[in-house]
Amino acid sequence: MSFETLGVETDDGVMTLTLNRPDRLNAFTRPMLDEMLSVLDMADADDAVRAVIVTGAGRAFCAGVDLDDPDAFTAAQIDPGETDPEKWADPGNRDMGGILALRLFNCLKPVIAAVNGPAVGIGATMQLPMDIRLASEKARFGFVFARRGIVPEAASSWFLPRLVGMSQALEWSYTGRVFGAEEALAGGLVRSVHAPEDLLPAAMQIAREIADHAAPISVALTRQMMWRMAGASHPMEAHRVDSRAIVARSCSEDSAEGVASFLEKRAPAFPNTVSTDMPGFFPWWDEPGWKSE
Amino acid sequence: MSFETLGVETDDGVMTLTLNRPDRLNAFTRPMLDEMLSVLDMADADDAVRAVIVTGAGRAFCAGVDLDDPDAFTAAQIDPGETDPEKWADPGNRDMGGILALRLFNCLKPVIAAVNGPAVGIGATMQLPMDIRLASEKARFGFVFARRGIVPEAASSWFLPRLVGMSQALEWSYTGRVFGAEEALAGGLVRSVHAPEDLLPAAMQIAREIADHAAPISVALTRQMMWRMAGASHPMEAHRVDSRAIVARSCSEDSAEGVASFLEKRAPAFPNTVSTDMPGFFPWWDEPGWKSE
Amino acid sequence: MSFETLGVETDDGVMTLTLNRPDRLNAFTRPMLDEMLSVLDMADADDAVRAVIVTGAGRAFCAGVDLDDPDAFTAAQIDPGETDPEKWADPGNRDMGGILALRLFNCLKPVIAAVNGPAVGIGATMQLPMDIRLASEKARFGFVFARRGIVPEAASSWFLPRLVGMSQALEWSYTGRVFGAEEALAGGLVRSVHAPEDLLPAAMQIAREIADHAAPISVALTRQMMWRMAGASHPMEAHRVDSRAIVARSCSEDSAEGVASFLEKRAPAFPNTVSTDMPGFFPWWDEPGWKSE
Repeated sequence: MSFETLGVETDDGVMTLTLNRPDRLNAFTRPMLDEMLSVLDMADADDAVRAVIVTGAGRAFCAGVDLDDPDAFTAAQIDPGETDPEKWADPGNRDMGGILALRLFNCLKPVIAAVNGPAVGIGATMQLPMDIRLASEKARFGFVFARRGIVPEAASSWFLPRLVGMSQALEWSYTGRVFGAEEALAGGLVRSVHAPEDLLPAAMQIAREIADHAAPISVALTRQMMWRMAGASHPMEAHRVDSRAIVARSCSEDSAEGVASFLEKRAPAFPNTVSTDMPGFFPWWDEPGWKSE
Repeated sequence: MSFETLGVETDDGVMTLTLNRPDRLNAFTRPMLDEMLSVLDMADADDAVRAVIVTGAGRAFCAGVDLDDPDAFTAAQIDPGETDPEKWADPGNRDMGGILALRLFNCLKPVIAAVNGPAVGIGATMQLPMDIRLASEKARFGFVFARRGIVPEAASSWFLPRLVGMSQALEWSYTGRVFGAEEALAGGLVRSVHAPEDLLPAAMQIAREIADHAAPISVALTRQMMWRMAGASHPMEAHRVDSRAIVARSCSEDSAEGVASFLEKRAPAFPNTVSTDMPGFFPWWDEPGWKSE
Repeated sequence: MSFETLGVETDDGVMTLTLNRPDRLNAFTRPMLDEMLSVLDMADADDAVRAVIVTGAGRAFCAGVDLDDPDAFTAAQIDPGETDPEKWADPGNRDMGGILALRLFNCLKPVIAAVNGPAVGIGATMQLPMDIRLASEKARFGFVFARRGIVPEAASSWFLPRLVGMSQALEWSYTGRVFGAEEALAGGLVRSVHAPEDLLPAAMQIAREIADHAAPISVALTRQMMWRMAGASHPMEAHRVDSRAIVARSCSEDSAEGVASFLEKRAPAFPNTVSTDMPGFFPWWDEPGWKSE
């Protein structure tokens, strides 16, 4: 498959998804949204993909929504006061960033952001439902919405305070300040800062650590267990899922291989696959729909 | 208006609220609660107020509830075993700190604590629903409740772990230890520590960054989106609000001015006001009442 | 009482619970679970216990579930696809780590982990519902589940992201990496790192700070207020509990002693006890059962 706005390459278990409109600083458009959704579907369905790295072509990560895209802000055909959830259910009326964020939330593969340059607006908020963020020294971040007269989107009011704490989330969002990699590191937005040439190798090293050592089903379950339990009111909810998951996976071929490879001090070769062997209780949740408000 | 327990001044968009009982180390009383509630109502209603700084007169921030205030601990006229929520609904029976905390939670303007000196008991817990905290080198903090035989109040069991993590919240609350600005910084309670003479200028610099660059409605919506989503179980809840907010604000005069000022590289002059132009879907939540337990 | 898998000693208000199978690196077994549950019941019931320290005998903290324990992974007599909650209610079918984690969640006494050496699998996850974690320079941690083909257990999908943030939780859980005390400190898993011989004294110093200064009922209420409010969607839930707790404890003998000892600058001697004087509204919650899914 080929894409107009993205580069997509999978090598030895790691898919690299490159935002690829470098002449526009990889500014976000509706076609880019649609292509990213397709690629995430491909990644989840393909057992050869064990982890996904997201980065940008050229000097930017993503400079925000493309202001020259005629559909960027005008696609919605709805009165904002409309209260009928049926009418809002049309994706054309819904925040593009949120559609991407919710898709990322549902991923079965780890997603690692390698932030190579400026990441502003949706370029910053799209990273939040990714699992791990690394930055180049040249990265810059801006939750600039208040400076543009709009609001933080992409469900970032849910994600950002959970990642960096309420005070840091509010300060960045109130001021709309554009800040560098060191402030992002100090604030907990990124895990590490790298020289530009070391960024992708560092992201790849984490991806390899996962691809080489972790059972794919374990990783898929862990991703959904952790993100879903962020909204659970009591640890009993986790205990219910854990119990079924521990029983199911402890009697799996993966578990036998995990223990054997550990005792034999060799790399594991896990036989089970996400496409065929996810336990019967998965998914254990009822996904909230747009209308179930 | 003049106040007995507070100083209140608004200058170029920034209100400074000063706890002003310096001979009592700004100890908290019921009149101080009532005056703070009035001032926060004023701040929310006044479009000239773009941010609020809270600080203390003299050498303290706030030394806790005034033990000499006859109403401090004896105002409640209720048996603690009373289970009829109707009877607890009387504010006189309810925790003073919690009444203040819930009012701060509902603010439409950013609130910045500039902690100039000792902040103990309610002097510490009242800061938690404020958005951003800065400390003087002379600040001291104490969640001293367990040492007095009582419990953390002001809904701090909800706020403190969300700000500093569960372990730090518990350690400070179990021990009742009084600690300095450096421990507060290391623990994530304050964003920065300043020489005493630099404290208010540093708080003002953040307030100015907001007042000079951010659209007031964007800030008001952002404040409520972030604080409200702290209790949301799924990012879909944010996506529903975001979608309406993005549609509403993208076709606003503020958005036009935000984009124009950005492209023209000049400071924005946002025309919309909180008092008249909040979107029709605001507030989008049902506020839980005392009795809806 | 004597125990097969644990050492238990209470001295001057501080109970030290030592995982005591040093020849097996304190690997976890079902008898160890049962004994830990008994000891936590004892600690909660005994007013002489003001804080609990958990550590390991010999060179390890706990090397995970004992792979030689015949019941370790095979005890469950249930199909993982079973959806009848009645059948899962049997503790024998439930995750051992989760049973321990939920019991720790319900403790009335502060629990401090003094991690003296390797802590892997359940040896790492059992620490998360403890309140405070300190590490020896010789401590090592591993959320190794994905490398064994299983999943994080002990409700750690609920606890770990709340302690260290989502990204750090996912990175440790995806990679299954075993890491040292410095990485644990940088990631927020432990509060401090100590030379081996200083570990228990440092844990004891915090325990003493609690036992010598804090009212036992205040500590018990604080523990449950903070952990329970982690799942509360709105600070109003805390305000309701706070109001009753503040009224109840402000008219207690403990409060009188707390204020008197403060004014007289002496150590307090709190008369109220957890076994006899907990306020009538405690517990204020409905504990979710296994079956109330």
